[in-house]
Amino acid sequence: MPDYQTSYLEKPQLTIDARKVRRNIARIVDKFKRHGVFFRPHFKTHQCAAIGELYRDMGITAITVSSLDMAAYFAEHGWDDITLAVPVNPGQLQDIDRLARRVSLNLLVDSLEVATMLNNKLKVRCPLWIKVDVGYGRVGIKWHDEQKIIELVNLVENSPQLEFCGLLTHSGHTYECRGHEQVIRRFDESRRRMLKLKQILLANGSRARISMGDTPSASLVEAFEGVDEMRPGNFVFYDLTQTQIGSCSEADIAVAVACPVIGKYEDDLKVVIYGGSVHLSKDSVTINGERLFGQVGLPTSDGWKIIPLKDGKVISCCQEVSAIKVSREVFEQIELAQTLYILPVHSCLAAEVYPRYLTTDGEVLDRFRLFE
Amino acid sequence: MPDYQTSYLEKPQLTIDARKVRRNIARIVDKFKRHGVFFRPHFKTHQCAAIGELYRDMGITAITVSSLDMAAYFAEHGWDDITLAVPVNPGQLQDIDRLARRVSLNLLVDSLEVATMLNNKLKVRCPLWIKVDVGYGRVGIKWHDEQKIIELVNLVENSPQLEFCGLLTHSGHTYECRGHEQVIRRFDESRRRMLKLKQILLANGSRARISMGDTPSASLVEAFEGVDEMRPGNFVFYDLTQTQIGSCSEADIAVAVACPVIGKYEDDLKVVIYGGSVHLSKDSVTINGERLFGQVGLPTSDGWKIIPLKDGKVISCCQEVSAIKVSREVFEQIELAQTLYILPVHSCLAAEVYPRYLTTDGEVLDRFRLFE
Repeated sequence: MPDYQTSYLEKPQLTIDARKVRRNIARIVDKFKRHGVFFRPHFKTHQCAAIGELYRDMGITAITVSSLDMAAYFAEHGWDDITLAVPVNPGQLQDIDRLARRVSLNLLVDSLEVATMLNNKLKVRCPLWIKVDVGYGRVGIKWHDEQKIIELVNLVENSPQLEFCGLLTHSGHTYECRGHEQVIRRFDESRRRMLKLKQILLANGSRARISMGDTPSASLVEAFEGVDEMRPGNFVFYDLTQTQIGSCSEADIAVAVACPVIGKYEDDLKVVIYGGSVHLSKDSVTINGERLFGQVGLPTSDGWKIIPLKDGKVISCCQEVSAIKVSREVFEQIELAQTLYILPVHSCLAAEVYPRYLTTDGEVLDRFRLFE
Repeated sequence: MPDYQTSYLEKPQLTIDARKVRRNIARIVDKFKRHGVFFRPHFKTHQCAAIGELYRDMGITAITVSSLDMAAYFAEHGWDDITLAVPVNPGQLQDIDRLARRVSLNLLVDSLEVATMLNNKLKVRCPLWIKVDVGYGRVGIKWHDEQKIIELVNLVENSPQLEFCGLLTHSGHTYECRGHEQVIRRFDESRRRMLKLKQILLANGSRARISMGDTPSASLVEAFEGVDEMRPGNFVFYDLTQTQIGSCSEADIAVAVACPVIGKYEDDLKVVIYGGSVHLSKDSVTINGERLFGQVGLPTSDGWKIIPLKDGKVISCCQEVSAIKVSREVFEQIELAQTLYILPVHSCLAAEVYPRYLTTDGEVLDRFRLFE
């Protein structure tokens, strides 16, 4: 048994394979270098200063985050060019001012109302992106609402407190795609919509950069013409959702929750682990009509070996324990009290549970916590 | 505006209506008193010492928890009769010994293997329940596997380190029920299965108490004959899942996540809040074929007023923000930057996110944290 792994595990523990993390980062860094696209990775998946350093070692200087507190955490750890990629919360203007005094804090708006509020109340001039909805349907001004976008750009360009950067979108509807072709087609549609807006703004006298996001596109697309910046984040760990989309292979998944086996039920070929929705998150993925909460890895000398879903899948998940359906062959390999590794459905949410990660090399990595 | 509520909320905040909490507790305490059933409430939903005191004020002396750390937390807060209602994790025997020296720690097993391990390794004699699966299908020995249950009871009764208490089950499949009748029928089926086992054990010379759980049954059932103990927990807060089952009315839901409005989208009658899956949990409930992540409450002078689902429902939920579909009438009542209250799908998981709760009276209540 490797020494990072207690064969009698006390509690579920998020475990990181740092080799896979490095490989995942290097692959995307190289890709965007090759394409001449500025890479501003999203740090919301790992939220960890030490993992941030791996990016820095590969030349990354600018990052994306999803909350102001997360921005402050990474500012503490030496990052000074940060995009807060959710629309500004008007309740946090004072905190924004405080942080924007220390770092270049790029903000996001999608309404005249909030842009006006920022112009009137911010004390520090901030770079600002306009959020466009290219079809995902969550936040942003709709891509076809050209008049509204022009109006907002005009307001921002005339604001002494705001510096217009460009148009930012997250084509999160690539998560509905399955396979290379669908992702490529959807990203291309989003990209064309953004480029059309860029042209319209140019005709109006405004120069806009184009910033796009998402791990499926970053992993699978090779055509980024006209895109100035990419902001994917999940690829650092990947997860079961991404293998289902086709963004990565199972071997690329760099994170797993180590859980002790507390029950074996031969009649049902079922194994129960200590580790439930509070340890894995309750996010699920539906595969062949079946709702699943994780895939299973068996311990190896340097991490885990993934077993195929048909031989081991987390089929139910209550607060503290989960049930795993296994094949007869796998059932016989598993012993009571041993450690299993659960590859999460959604690594961002699984990682969110833990204040620190353990690596397969035995290192402990602290991370940002939502609430102290 | 009430003073507990900043109209410009900085961050999502779990809010508790303590009046509703007290009313929910009192109703169930009275009910079990009336039925002569010992009430050992599950504390996994609130995990909060101050809320524990509300129970103590109503005469409760024994509790249920779902992890050993949670047991230790409540032991610190003066509880000395605690059932750890998940099967023992063999990796925690030392910690079990440590805690069992200080309090009466009731353990749970469902296999000869773990019972033998406990008998061989525990240094402190512990009360022990045998977990029966009455049809839920997660953990426990199947109710019809009478021989296995008898064997395990014999082992426990002959063990110097273990004190046999009885048979414990959680008929969690009541969560699949909709409406009084289905819940009552399912609980009754479970109860009869447990009573039959009790008779079989009695014929074998063993006296077993019967302990059952779950909020739907505790809320809706009036026939508990032969049941010695009940262990529901969720009823303290209730949630959207429970209103769908029919366990409670919307007015009984005692917990909501206060979130600031950061976007309004008139064309779609959509409102976006700061508050996503890391603040609400990603658990969802499907109502009329639609996957929902919460119901909406508007702020009032002393809490929130729930609006019907047809007029306000959380339809999507990403890491930090969520989108709410509202009716035209509600849309016009909501202002940018105001607070909305999101009634959670699953209150246990929403509460789990927060290290402390705010009450509508402005009190701050600390709670147990999974990881310090």
